[in-house]
Amino acid sequence: MRLLFIGDVVGSMGRDQLQQYMPKLKQKYQPQLTIVNGENAASGKGITEKIYKQFLEWGADVVTMGNHTFDKKEIFSFIDDAKKMVRPANFPEGTPGKGILYVNVNGIEVAIVNLQGRTFLPPLDDPFRYADHLVEEAKKRTNVIFIDFHAEATSEKLALAWYLDGQISALVGTHTHVQTADQRILDQGTAYITDVGMTGPYDGIIGTERDAVIRRFLTSLPARFEPPKEGRTQLSGVIIDIDEKTGKSKRIDRILINDDHPFFS
Amino acid sequence: MRLLFIGDVVGSMGRDQLQQYMPKLKQKYQPQLTIVNGENAASGKGITEKIYKQFLEWGADVVTMGNHTFDKKEIFSFIDDAKKMVRPANFPEGTPGKGILYVNVNGIEVAIVNLQGRTFLPPLDDPFRYADHLVEEAKKRTNVIFIDFHAEATSEKLALAWYLDGQISALVGTHTHVQTADQRILDQGTAYITDVGMTGPYDGIIGTERDAVIRRFLTSLPARFEPPKEGRTQLSGVIIDIDEKTGKSKRIDRILINDDHPFFS
Amino acid sequence: MRLLFIGDVVGSMGRDQLQQYMPKLKQKYQPQLTIVNGENAASGKGITEKIYKQFLEWGADVVTMGNHTFDKKEIFSFIDDAKKMVRPANFPEGTPGKGILYVNVNGIEVAIVNLQGRTFLPPLDDPFRYADHLVEEAKKRTNVIFIDFHAEATSEKLALAWYLDGQISALVGTHTHVQTADQRILDQGTAYITDVGMTGPYDGIIGTERDAVIRRFLTSLPARFEPPKEGRTQLSGVIIDIDEKTGKSKRIDRILINDDHPFFS
Amino acid sequence: MRLLFIGDVVGSMGRDQLQQYMPKLKQKYQPQLTIVNGENAASGKGITEKIYKQFLEWGADVVTMGNHTFDKKEIFSFIDDAKKMVRPANFPEGTPGKGILYVNVNGIEVAIVNLQGRTFLPPLDDPFRYADHLVEEAKKRTNVIFIDFHAEATSEKLALAWYLDGQISALVGTHTHVQTADQRILDQGTAYITDVGMTGPYDGIIGTERDAVIRRFLTSLPARFEPPKEGRTQLSGVIIDIDEKTGKSKRIDRILINDDHPFFS
Ligand SMILES: [Fe+2]
Ligand SMILES: [Fe+2]
Ligand SMILES: [Fe+2]
Ligand SMILES: [Fe+2]
Ligand SMILES: [Fe+2]
Ligand SMILES: [Fe+2]
Ligand SMILES: [Fe+2]
Ligand SMILES: [Fe+2]
Repeated sequence: MRLLFIGDVVGSMGRDQLQQYMPKLKQKYQPQLTIVNGENAASGKGITEKIYKQFLEWGADVVTMGNHTFDKKEIFSFIDDAKKMVRPANFPEGTPGKGILYVNVNGIEVAIVNLQGRTFLPPLDDPFRYADHLVEEAKKRTNVIFIDFHAEATSEKLALAWYLDGQISALVGTHTHVQTADQRILDQGTAYITDVGMTGPYDGIIGTERDAVIRRFLTSLPARFEPPKEGRTQLSGVIIDIDEKTGKSKRIDRILINDDHPFFS
Repeated sequence: MRLLFIGDVVGSMGRDQLQQYMPKLKQKYQPQLTIVNGENAASGKGITEKIYKQFLEWGADVVTMGNHTFDKKEIFSFIDDAKKMVRPANFPEGTPGKGILYVNVNGIEVAIVNLQGRTFLPPLDDPFRYADHLVEEAKKRTNVIFIDFHAEATSEKLALAWYLDGQISALVGTHTHVQTADQRILDQGTAYITDVGMTGPYDGIIGTERDAVIRRFLTSLPARFEPPKEGRTQLSGVIIDIDEKTGKSKRIDRILINDDHPFFS
Repeated sequence: MRLLFIGDVVGSMGRDQLQQYMPKLKQKYQPQLTIVNGENAASGKGITEKIYKQFLEWGADVVTMGNHTFDKKEIFSFIDDAKKMVRPANFPEGTPGKGILYVNVNGIEVAIVNLQGRTFLPPLDDPFRYADHLVEEAKKRTNVIFIDFHAEATSEKLALAWYLDGQISALVGTHTHVQTADQRILDQGTAYITDVGMTGPYDGIIGTERDAVIRRFLTSLPARFEPPKEGRTQLSGVIIDIDEKTGKSKRIDRILINDDHPFFS
Repeated sequence: MRLLFIGDVVGSMGRDQLQQYMPKLKQKYQPQLTIVNGENAASGKGITEKIYKQFLEWGADVVTMGNHTFDKKEIFSFIDDAKKMVRPANFPEGTPGKGILYVNVNGIEVAIVNLQGRTFLPPLDDPFRYADHLVEEAKKRTNVIFIDFHAEATSEKLALAWYLDGQISALVGTHTHVQTADQRILDQGTAYITDVGMTGPYDGIIGTERDAVIRRFLTSLPARFEPPKEGRTQLSGVIIDIDEKTGKSKRIDRILINDDHPFFS
């Protein structure tokens, strides 16, 4: 089974980029399952129902989230009905939405899990124990388990991946908005990359308007960050090939589309 | 002018890897200048005089450092005499060592600067203002300016690079120990990569023994981290081609050597 | 010389409390100089010109600030003309406003300095070095020097106070909004308290509406915090007696007014 | 029922102070239950079996801990047998030791709970939910419930106290090592103080040798902190009077013993 994952879609430029390239990528790579991180889809912070539905319409099967899940208040009105959305599972009990979902891919069940790290991020429940429980639960239904681990620190992402190596098909990191070059299959068959990177402005700073961020570093004054509305764009993703019997991955490849790495269909 | 930079060398495995591959890389790429980050060279934390001298002997022209600069007490006895070492310039006034040095490469002067970020790291002086001052100082002598920006947050690294774009030849990030895939030439000619990645154990967690790090995340108990002493290794670096007249970069390429990406001479 | 300092005034309840009790406190204690921290005066975040002027009208001689100085955009329009306001001096060069000011108290000049800590707070310039420079500057004009050190960590506040002991008349901490019981005269004559505490709601959580803060801890969801508009109030302050010749303090006493500690005129 | 709580005992000076004054305090105030925080008892970090036993011998009934619980490796060899010790309950499942214990005071059972905050401290499980579960468990046996909440942020301590107001007899904060002046009985009968403060050196910086801490702030260099071995001392505590039928508190008073506040028997 082939899986396409597209990293944090940021603002209107990210959405445009997704709408334009997701179909082309699906055409080219023929994934059976397409997952998109949407935590920054609405003006850089959170997501709306309209955008969530657009993502599905444009070809996403599942939308994962992160620390910005609840930034747009609208989320509370639709997340419990959003069957194809996962938010970090280790938010406290009682949080709207869910952290694991199952999709049926040509008769094979696939578990998709979202978790959030705690290093350099606000306190949440322990992602390692949540991973344990969710993987145990999922294992009763399927060997094909995919985790989007939304975290800042490289050490935390590597630790959870190695901890779960052989039990899950893939763990991909999101949140830093910069793609790492360390995609690999770990010893026991888990596909891994520290960060998939973002989809949206190519000349911003992690998707945000450049001058505002630089000014913030220079002045320490309060600032409001917005994604730019025009300019060059990029798309970041990975393609993962999973043996659907064993749930082990055979291959993981990075996708990076921008003016320095043009897309060839 | 061609410059080879090799990212954070960690522990004995990192040193072995460096000794073995730096000559081969120099042979293959023929850089005129080779810079190595050595902040983790001695058992993962700091550096000794012996190791510093070995690095030069094995072919490094300059050694850059980071937040672990002063972890080995021995550093205080030799850093002021270590002509080819830079530590983060934005440590407070009076800190032993220096944050900028100049090397002569076939008659061309090259300024090498080390700076440390403040996001998710201990308080230091403002790296943006230090960059301003040091670049201004260096500009009086040369257009070829290289910065190793040792920082955690992707936003801080991107911000400083864009802030300096066109004024310096290259800014490369270090510290996260995972190579990023975003190497590029910015609009005004500054070569950039968010993180070069590390040199040392390939199957550890950012260079450290895996089980100890995982146990730490699982237990929250105090832990002592050591780099493993044996196992598979990796080397991370970049090659940068600089126009020595203008100081602008023409090209930046990633180097990643490990079992999944074997070296071809 | 007797000095009255009143800690962080929060929102409308804090302002009402200040308006009501500052005159009574001045009546009772007869201070020659009254300083009020106003960083939370406007709805818990920042200050407006109107409020700043009210504070002076109601009897404050100087208004100090903190990490919320620039939260209300209006500040930029009046801070450079606000002769009786100091904001943390260790904001980067070029920041509007000033970090030190001098007032004449019956022919004696008094220097008032505002600094901000860096532990558990955003990066700023080094408050210890700023203190060195500002104290050196002030010493040329007067021995009577007062510092409002706006900081989170007890260790940072104690460290700066002991560092300056004997060189300044008093260092009082602000920012945690809870008064500490450790007021004392240090060995060389500097009056000290780790935190003066806040002025405003008595039954909130550091001045903020209780339920919202508790909900935030329980849910980790985004929240907007507002000070309550009605309920019981408190006022926190200190009275410091300074020998105006030597600049050394002779005495520091805490003031705490609330339903459990009623004010007696 | 009267309860005496003594805040973080630091190093040998803290132990001497405890040995000297705990009997005098018990003589003077006649508490039925004496609890001592011992997380810094052994050279500022952690505790040994010998010290734990001394504390009991000198008159403590229970020893509470904090973020330094596991700093001395020896702890692992005796904590599971230390019947009178609680460590923060919200360490992950499987952590040695326990977070709640019951003592019988003249036929009345008292529950003693230790919890640790997460703001500005390493990730742990949610102290609010642990509090819920432990209070629910304890309520089946007794109305008299005491919590030592070891936390940094004033907001987190106030939030947990107000959250539990009326359900527990008392929540006292520890960890900042500076006594706060806000002791009070909350609306529904829970006794509260944001921080009890420390027991040990009076002229150090939160119990540590002054020069080392100041140097650390000035240089940002690695430092080893040790409590001083001689000098003036202080003791910080609270006395709480609890109605043992309802479990509500009637009164909380601060104890502070140092050269500026001498002890009178
Ligand atoms: Fe994101
Ligand atoms: Fe994120
Ligand atoms: Fe490093
Ligand atoms: Fe580092
Ligand atoms: Fe405040
Ligand atoms: Fe503040
Ligand atoms: Fe402590
Ligand atoms: Fe502590």
